[in-house]
Amino acid sequence: MARAYRKVIKLIPYEDALKKIFSTLCNRASVHEIVPVDKACGRILAEDIYAHIDVPENNISLVDGFAVKCEDVVGASQEKPVRLRVIGKLYPWSDTSSAKISDGEAYYVACGAPIPSGANAVIKVENVVLCGEEIEVKMSATVWENICLRGEDIKRGDLILRKGALLRPQDIGVLAGLGIKRVKVLRKPRIAIISTGNELIEKSKRDPEAIPNNYALILAGLISKIGGEPMMYGIVPDDITEIREKICSALNESDIIMTIGGCSLGERDFVPEAVNLLGEPGVIFHGVMIKPGRVSAFGMIGGKPIVMLPGLFASTIAGFYLIFVPSISCYMGLSIDLLLPKVNAKICRDVPADKKPYHTFLPTSIKSSGEDLIAEPIMDGPASLIRFINANGFILLPPKRGLSKGERVNVTLFSSDELFRIMPA
Amino acid sequence: MARAYRKVIKLIPYEDALKKIFSTLCNRASVHEIVPVDKACGRILAEDIYAHIDVPENNISLVDGFAVKCEDVVGASQEKPVRLRVIGKLYPWSDTSSAKISDGEAYYVACGAPIPSGANAVIKVENVVLCGEEIEVKMSATVWENICLRGEDIKRGDLILRKGALLRPQDIGVLAGLGIKRVKVLRKPRIAIISTGNELIEKSKRDPEAIPNNYALILAGLISKIGGEPMMYGIVPDDITEIREKICSALNESDIIMTIGGCSLGERDFVPEAVNLLGEPGVIFHGVMIKPGRVSAFGMIGGKPIVMLPGLFASTIAGFYLIFVPSISCYMGLSIDLLLPKVNAKICRDVPADKKPYHTFLPTSIKSSGEDLIAEPIMDGPASLIRFINANGFILLPPKRGLSKGERVNVTLFSSDELFRIMPA
Repeated sequence: MARAYRKVIKLIPYEDALKKIFSTLCNRASVHEIVPVDKACGRILAEDIYAHIDVPENNISLVDGFAVKCEDVVGASQEKPVRLRVIGKLYPWSDTSSAKISDGEAYYVACGAPIPSGANAVIKVENVVLCGEEIEVKMSATVWENICLRGEDIKRGDLILRKGALLRPQDIGVLAGLGIKRVKVLRKPRIAIISTGNELIEKSKRDPEAIPNNYALILAGLISKIGGEPMMYGIVPDDITEIREKICSALNESDIIMTIGGCSLGERDFVPEAVNLLGEPGVIFHGVMIKPGRVSAFGMIGGKPIVMLPGLFASTIAGFYLIFVPSISCYMGLSIDLLLPKVNAKICRDVPADKKPYHTFLPTSIKSSGEDLIAEPIMDGPASLIRFINANGFILLPPKRGLSKGERVNVTLFSSDELFRIMPA
Repeated sequence: MARAYRKVIKLIPYEDALKKIFSTLCNRASVHEIVPVDKACGRILAEDIYAHIDVPENNISLVDGFAVKCEDVVGASQEKPVRLRVIGKLYPWSDTSSAKISDGEAYYVACGAPIPSGANAVIKVENVVLCGEEIEVKMSATVWENICLRGEDIKRGDLILRKGALLRPQDIGVLAGLGIKRVKVLRKPRIAIISTGNELIEKSKRDPEAIPNNYALILAGLISKIGGEPMMYGIVPDDITEIREKICSALNESDIIMTIGGCSLGERDFVPEAVNLLGEPGVIFHGVMIKPGRVSAFGMIGGKPIVMLPGLFASTIAGFYLIFVPSISCYMGLSIDLLLPKVNAKICRDVPADKKPYHTFLPTSIKSSGEDLIAEPIMDGPASLIRFINANGFILLPPKRGLSKGERVNVTLFSSDELFRIMPA
C-alpha cells in the first residue's frame, strides 16, 4: 500500500501561535523576590520606586568657598573688597543644626557641605583672600549662587523608576543614594535546555572534550542576556523514553523547558510525542507558518511551558526568537521590547516577497554609514552558522511582504552586545 | 599676611591628558589567559581565529528526504512518477564512507544526514510516495538541490573572528562547532575602587545598613560592563596616612586603582598627595580642562595606573568616562569604541558654546522618534544625580564649540544597557 513517508502536522499562522502562547501564559502571577540593592544590577524592577527623602537633604555648597549673605557683598569688587568675619567651618559630614550667620559674617563651606542658616550664597575660595580671621570678598553674589537647594535633585514623593525597568548601574546608585536597601525584582526564570540527537552523542563519543551541543551553548548565552537563568541539561538520544524522562526531571527543577531538535517530521523525531506522554495539555501547537523554523512546537505540562525548537541551526534560532522569546516575555509579564533591543535602519537591497503565507525571519547585518544605519539581509543557505556571526539581528517579514531598497525597517538585535559591532565612526 | 585660601593646580588641555595616559600605558604588554570556550562569552578575543575544518564536514541533506541522482528523475511528475529502489537510510550520525547509490537507486536521508556518494540531489519526503522497498518520485530535481555542500558554511582556513572581538553567545557556538576547545582572551583587569570622605563614614555610622559609597557601586557596575573586574575597597576617611595605606594595599591586589573624592583643592583633599608619597612617578597630571571633572588626576605607582576622580557626582562620572575609560582601554590595548557603544542622533536644541577652552561632558537623553534618534542634552545643576537616570549617554563637546538644533552628533552610551530605553516604537 502506498503511503506518505512522513508524519503530518497542520501549520498555524504565526499570529495564532502568539495568541496561544499569550492565552496559555497570560494569567500567571509573575514571581518576585526581594534582593539587596547592591545585588540588583541587571535585574528587572517589580515595583514602582518613589523617593521618600529629598536629595540633597539640606541646602549644600557646590564649591569650596564661603557661605555669605548676598546682601553683605553687594557692590564688592577687586577695587572695593568687602570684609567679612569667618566664624566657623562646615564639611560635608558636618551637622548643620547650630550653624548660623549674622550680618557681616561668613562660614567656610567645603564642597558638599551644608549651608548655615542665614546664608544665601557661596563665594568660591578663588574669589576671596584670607586675612587672619577675616576674608576679603572681591565680587558680589546672586541669591543661591553655588548652592544646591534641598530637594533640587530629587523631591520626596518623586517617581524615580517604573516597574519593568532593567536596573542599570546608575539606577542602583540612585536607589542606594535614596537610602533604599532592598528592591523587589522579578525572579529570573530557570530555563532547562535539552539537546536531542544521536549525532550529538556520536560526536561526543568521538571527542569527549568537544562540545557537540554548541547550539545549546548559544541559546544559554542568549537566555542570560534576556534575563533568564539557563540550566544545561545535556544531550539525550533520539529515544522517546529517554526524552520523556529527561523532560520529566527538568520539569521538577526549572520553570521553562526548551528542547533542541527532534520536533521535525522524520521517523526519529520524538519530542512532541514525548511531551504528550507527560500529561495535559501537552503539545498546544506543533507547526507554525514561519520560515525557517516551521516545525517549532509549544506545550505545557504541570503549568510549565515547553518550547520545542528544530535542530537545524537557522530554524533553531528562528524558533528561539519567534517562539521562545515571546514565551519567556509573557511568562515574566514583560513586553518583548524590554528583552530585545531594536534599531531602525535603511535596507540596502530589495527583498522579494515569499509566495507562501509565512512570516519570514531574515538575519540581517547592520553597518553604520555616517549618519544612518544600513541593514543588509543575509540570504545564504538555511544551514549556515557563519551568517549568524555576520548578522546582528533579524527582520521579521509578514506574509507575502517584500522590502524595497531604501525602505526603513526595524531590526531586532540578537542582543545588546551587537551594538559594539555596528557603531558610527 | 593675605594668602589664597586654596591649593593651586595647573589644568592641562584634555588632549594632553589623553596623550599622557597613552604614553604612560601604551607599551604595556596586554595580559592574556586561555579559557575553555564555553566560559569565554563576554570576553575579548586576544587572537585571530581561523577555521581548521570545513563546515559542514560532509555534503549534508537540508531536509528529510531521499538522496537521488538528478539524472534519474528528469521529467518526473505527478502524472509520470519515477520509481527508485531505496537501498538504505542515513542519519546525521551515520558514517558515510560505505554509502553509495547507482542508477535507479535512492537512500533515505534524514535532515542533517551525509549524502551517499553518487547522489547529487535530495527529494523532500512530501514529494515522494513509499511503495514497499521503492519510492515513487513525483518531481524532478536540480543538481545539489536540498544539499548543503562540504565547506559551504565555513571553509578551512577562513578567518572567523578577529583579535579584539567581544565574544557573543553565537561566536562561542561557532567556535565550539569548529571543534575549538580553548581560546586566548584578554585577562580582565582588576579595578580597586576606593571611596574617600569623612561624610561617607559619618553616614554609615548613622545607618550601618546604608550604602554611603553609592557612587562606587555605580562605577563598579559600569566597570563590569566594559570588561573590568571591580573590587570594592570600601571607604577611607580624609586622612593622608589612611589613604596612602589603602592605596598601598590595593596596589598589591589589583591592576588599576580608582579613587573617588579627595582630589579637589580643599584643605581636606589628600589623595594626590598620598599618591606622591607612594613612589615614582606618582601623580602624572592633576587638573584637566574638562567640565565637569576638572580636578581629575592620573598617576602611576609600580607600573600600576591610579585614576583619581572627583567626589561630586557629575564630576565623578565625567572623570570616569573621560579619564578612566581611556586609561582602561589603553591598559587593555583596545580602542575606546570597543568598550563604549555610540549612536548617532539629531540634537533637539541649541547648546551654547562655553567661553572657556574646556571640553564639555554633556549628559544626554536619547529618544527614538520614528526613523530617527533624537538627542536631548540634560543641562541641570552640576550635583544632579537624577539626570543620570534620565540620560542615556553623553556628548563630548570640544572647547568653544556649541551645537545647533537639528545638527547630528555621536552620543556615547553609558553602557549597552541604555539600548533598552531608547528603542524605536
